[in-house]
Amino acid sequence: MKPAEFDRWVRTELDAVEEALTAWVPDNAPAGLGQAMRYGVLDGGKRVRPLLVLAASQAVGGLYEAALRAACAVELIHAYSLIHDDMPCMDDDVLRRGKPTVHVQFGEAQAMLAGDAMQALAFEVLTPGEADSAHFPGGPGVPPVLQARLCALLARAAGHAGMAGGQAIDLASIGLPLDEHVLRDMHHRKTGALLQASVLMGAATGSTSDAEWAALSDYGDALGLAFQVVDDILDVTQASETLGKTAGKDLHHNKPTYVTVLGLEAARRHAAELRDKAQAALARSGLANAAWLSLLADKVVEREH
Amino acid sequence: MKPAEFDRWVRTELDAVEEALTAWVPDNAPAGLGQAMRYGVLDGGKRVRPLLVLAASQAVGGLYEAALRAACAVELIHAYSLIHDDMPCMDDDVLRRGKPTVHVQFGEAQAMLAGDAMQALAFEVLTPGEADSAHFPGGPGVPPVLQARLCALLARAAGHAGMAGGQAIDLASIGLPLDEHVLRDMHHRKTGALLQASVLMGAATGSTSDAEWAALSDYGDALGLAFQVVDDILDVTQASETLGKTAGKDLHHNKPTYVTVLGLEAARRHAAELRDKAQAALARSGLANAAWLSLLADKVVEREH
Repeated sequence: MKPAEFDRWVRTELDAVEEALTAWVPDNAPAGLGQAMRYGVLDGGKRVRPLLVLAASQAVGGLYEAALRAACAVELIHAYSLIHDDMPCMDDDVLRRGKPTVHVQFGEAQAMLAGDAMQALAFEVLTPGEADSAHFPGGPGVPPVLQARLCALLARAAGHAGMAGGQAIDLASIGLPLDEHVLRDMHHRKTGALLQASVLMGAATGSTSDAEWAALSDYGDALGLAFQVVDDILDVTQASETLGKTAGKDLHHNKPTYVTVLGLEAARRHAAELRDKAQAALARSGLANAAWLSLLADKVVEREH
Repeated sequence: MKPAEFDRWVRTELDAVEEALTAWVPDNAPAGLGQAMRYGVLDGGKRVRPLLVLAASQAVGGLYEAALRAACAVELIHAYSLIHDDMPCMDDDVLRRGKPTVHVQFGEAQAMLAGDAMQALAFEVLTPGEADSAHFPGGPGVPPVLQARLCALLARAAGHAGMAGGQAIDLASIGLPLDEHVLRDMHHRKTGALLQASVLMGAATGSTSDAEWAALSDYGDALGLAFQVVDDILDVTQASETLGKTAGKDLHHNKPTYVTVLGLEAARRHAAELRDKAQAALARSGLANAAWLSLLADKVVEREH
């Protein structure tokens, strides 16, 4: 474990992601749509999902252009889901990533369209033509077989069986006394699916044995749940300025969380167990270059926002 | 031209599309999400886009499973756009395809999620794994290279440069005196892009020369615009019961249309010109099996709802 080297790697990759998103999210989309899209995804957020894609890709010696495209695509899906989730008909929130939410800034209609266009853009970014890959000179581009695989993984993580399905459960669960099983199912879909898909999309950019793939899948699964448990803890222990989003809102919305179901101390122990589970899966993978994935699992659990 | 045979073909293909959508749009998605998705796309609509995909695929001897998947995917994108477009923050409409709109029936939050999940589902349908294609026994499945091509075409037609971009212009244009040029640009994106993509996705399921592809692209372009001109005409000449959606709503919303910009008679002439342009492009393609595409162009212009 080399923390300073890890920090350098994070900075380098986040710069690359920011640069790519700045290039790929249009500033010339008509009638203010591009501005709303850029506002919603550029220059903010922890970028956990892109880092997972890029770390997993490095662990399997994956293609860099494909990994960078996958990293931006998952972040576009995540960012669009936040825009829609913050709208008045959903969580009705006004603060996100330390700024007014997209519908506060641009109006509800533009926010809905920006989210819709960002989901489409994720799949555009994953399916470059030859001309699109021109600024990765000398690279192999993204082979169409890999493009299809990445689209398949992302669509399933974003859709009814994944993120959107989890949000539907979330909506329906307000005020209900969920047990840990239902809560886990909800978070498995709502947050876990896209985090796990980030790891697997990164893994898909290289070659893996079935055993390596299964171990990375388990790692992504445990890490995805850990992320959500920690989110629930931070929602009650941190102030809005630290989070960059409205704190205490689960409680305010009367939403069941790991803290309300398990209690704060048990939730903290559960997060640590899930991190250990992620690390064990990583060790089981036998991948030599998994140091960044390992450090990311620690960071996810130890983060303070 | 064989009208009776054409009608039989339409019925057969629409049955196949309905059956496939019924199988692929989940009835077990959590917390009512599946019901909202099915309500929004099954059993309704003219299905012009699926018919264009299937007719274009037949014209080029394309793969049937790929064409059926593409047909369902474009209809899912179209149906999701209607759900979002009908919401209070957009057109605020209560009637669609002869039924209450999705947000009236299921609430705004579920309507937004259903639309979001349907966009993801479109890309799921386009990227089947081997198991997914099991009920097309003996078929070649959908080769990954074709999956990637179909995703690329659909994402670009649905996103900021296509449908979502057109809707942003539409939003911004309310009450403004648009000239025909801007109106054409709006409709080219808002409706034209997905109709043209339907033709091209169908064409992509088979093999075409560059000249055939270009001719089909021109056909789709002219037909897409013709469709919108006729929509604008029907909005002022037909009753809501005939349309299955609220009539006169463009006028009510003070939206510029081909009728307000050109006048009713000139709009009718323009629709006929665009149909002729589509037919000329088809003739130029030299494709022997383009009879259904030709009849579809006639139907689009002659329809009464």
